[in-house]
Amino acid sequence: MPPRFDFTITASDGRARTGIIATRRGEIRTPAFMPVGTAATVKAMKPADVRAGGADIILGNTYHLMLRPGAERVARLGGLHAFMRWDRPILTDSGGYQVMSLSELTTRSENGVAFRSHLDGSRHLLTPERSIEIQRLLGSTITMAFDELVPTTSPREVQAAAMERSMRWAKRSHDAFFGAEAHAADNAIFGIQQGALDEGLRRASADALTDIGFDGYAIGGLAVGEGQEAMFACLDYAPAQLPTGQPRYLMGVGKPDDIVGAVERGVDMFDCVLPTRSGRTGQAFTRNGPINIRNARFAEDQAPLDPASPTAGWSKGYLHHLVKSGEMLGAMLMTEHNLWFYQQLMADLRAAISAGRLAAFASAFRAAYRGGQGE
Amino acid sequence: MPPRFDFTITASDGRARTGIIATRRGEIRTPAFMPVGTAATVKAMKPADVRAGGADIILGNTYHLMLRPGAERVARLGGLHAFMRWDRPILTDSGGYQVMSLSELTTRSENGVAFRSHLDGSRHLLTPERSIEIQRLLGSTITMAFDELVPTTSPREVQAAAMERSMRWAKRSHDAFFGAEAHAADNAIFGIQQGALDEGLRRASADALTDIGFDGYAIGGLAVGEGQEAMFACLDYAPAQLPTGQPRYLMGVGKPDDIVGAVERGVDMFDCVLPTRSGRTGQAFTRNGPINIRNARFAEDQAPLDPASPTAGWSKGYLHHLVKSGEMLGAMLMTEHNLWFYQQLMADLRAAISAGRLAAFASAFRAAYRGGQGE
Repeated sequence: MPPRFDFTITASDGRARTGIIATRRGEIRTPAFMPVGTAATVKAMKPADVRAGGADIILGNTYHLMLRPGAERVARLGGLHAFMRWDRPILTDSGGYQVMSLSELTTRSENGVAFRSHLDGSRHLLTPERSIEIQRLLGSTITMAFDELVPTTSPREVQAAAMERSMRWAKRSHDAFFGAEAHAADNAIFGIQQGALDEGLRRASADALTDIGFDGYAIGGLAVGEGQEAMFACLDYAPAQLPTGQPRYLMGVGKPDDIVGAVERGVDMFDCVLPTRSGRTGQAFTRNGPINIRNARFAEDQAPLDPASPTAGWSKGYLHHLVKSGEMLGAMLMTEHNLWFYQQLMADLRAAISAGRLAAFASAFRAAYRGGQGE
Repeated sequence: MPPRFDFTITASDGRARTGIIATRRGEIRTPAFMPVGTAATVKAMKPADVRAGGADIILGNTYHLMLRPGAERVARLGGLHAFMRWDRPILTDSGGYQVMSLSELTTRSENGVAFRSHLDGSRHLLTPERSIEIQRLLGSTITMAFDELVPTTSPREVQAAAMERSMRWAKRSHDAFFGAEAHAADNAIFGIQQGALDEGLRRASADALTDIGFDGYAIGGLAVGEGQEAMFACLDYAPAQLPTGQPRYLMGVGKPDDIVGAVERGVDMFDCVLPTRSGRTGQAFTRNGPINIRNARFAEDQAPLDPASPTAGWSKGYLHHLVKSGEMLGAMLMTEHNLWFYQQLMADLRAAISAGRLAAFASAFRAAYRGGQGE
């Protein structure tokens, strides 16, 4: 039987690392990108095509699934893996971020967050214990601790208080997770570092989490509008505050060049809606930067988005037609391409780290990607 | 090299026949159902999945494609087969039906139909010659003659005049088709019988078309609101008015039990948006009749729509969740199931005719399908 959870670093290059996370559900090659499967589906994709594109793990959303179809219902239908037909690892977020960004009339207390559903106005309560229970009902492979988010523009004392509460909630999350022994015996839980852009708060958060002890550590509270420069400045110290031997997951990141810079700074895991959401709005990622396929100059372009893409059989002219016509196949093929592009980038990053040539790869990638913006 | 066009009847059972249409693009097993690929895509489906579901041929729409992306553009991008990546036969309609049902400010004359696009109000003219040219630019395997449609409720003299004009247009379509020798050497053209629900007009139309000589014959002007009983009454004589040795294509039909009844009456080919359109609105076809997957009784149904369906890995409970959530994957899987259901029905009909047990099959099918409505 594969281990419950194990992280092996196979090569390092500067602060960057490449390795393998082993779980009961299979291995995850790092650095890893996790496609987002919010409502028990990676939008516009069949699970087999998500896997064929190179994904080892996907992400599911506690907040969305607790509201529809409901965690208990998913459990009765066999858990999230069977429900959506993805048998490899699934990481579930804790709902902490979505409850603040999507729901209405939220009321925070030391116990948790009370809110109204954005779907039907119904009342709900998320606590660390309920978030962990929901993730267990979903059958999550990697559970995330429940945390409290505040805007990065909040005063330092607000940031500090939210971080400190998040650390108390991290302990409650940890205890709730390991209190359900059968699920904990086969699955893992990550803590989430908070502290906004303050190195001292980040240090205190990392120390608190390490004292509790988690299988991996996420860097939370970034990619929320602070910009790449500020994010990279934080990543110049935040990953090194976390244990070296365990995976580091930068939540909600990001654009391809964000990912490259974060990998250079020691991050192992990523998730972002960008490749899937962009695929539904006509943006395609290419090595020469993102393009808007609706642009008239693609109307008779006979070349594919990339000759190695799973969508290489179709021309940009065809994709232009589909997207302009509002055809679902346009969203399907654009999403498939974008997810492949992201997974190809991760494979390239892993190979570059293994070969000890990450700096050269990253430099060449950025030159082509940024130089070609709006090609 | 396979023949340009050849129809071999391999078995008959009563008025029903089963056989093979051979074309340069491959064989079509009859009775055949053609999924509708209006705008160069069978909506929500990859072409490989359309084929895997059992389709030998799909339909493309002259009216939609002439307006967007334009026939000349499709030709410059390699023709419809390469454009959408479907290398098997494609039948294109002539635009005659859509121009009357979708466009605005139509003006009919002996020359053709002038109209405004429903997309942008631009002015266009469709004549028999231009319709055939468009279908040639698309690279159609089976071209349809351009015809004039009038409501089935029109007075007999209006029906007669429209049928007679359609026959003059059929001759112009035929001559335009064979005037382009390179395309005609590799592809086929069908005439379209008109005459509404009048046996005499249908007879006159069939005679006129047979005099011109086509590769196959469509029965037009049905499935436009007259009801199954009236349609079957027409099909009790209309197919027999057409040549026995050539394919008979009932345009725009239909529901599963419409198809069974039409096959019993000697029809070989069908097209309809029903399986694809229904798939996008939550209706699934089953042997026990159509069901609306949005119904609450499916919320925790662990069974698939059909254990033999390509969607059998997913429960009705999952499909219910996807459709209720407006997820694209819901439309994708429901469409895939419905197309498979239709193709499975055609395979069952072919097998029943070959075995000389069509009456028993049709009777059992109707009992289960109608008896189970709203299961």
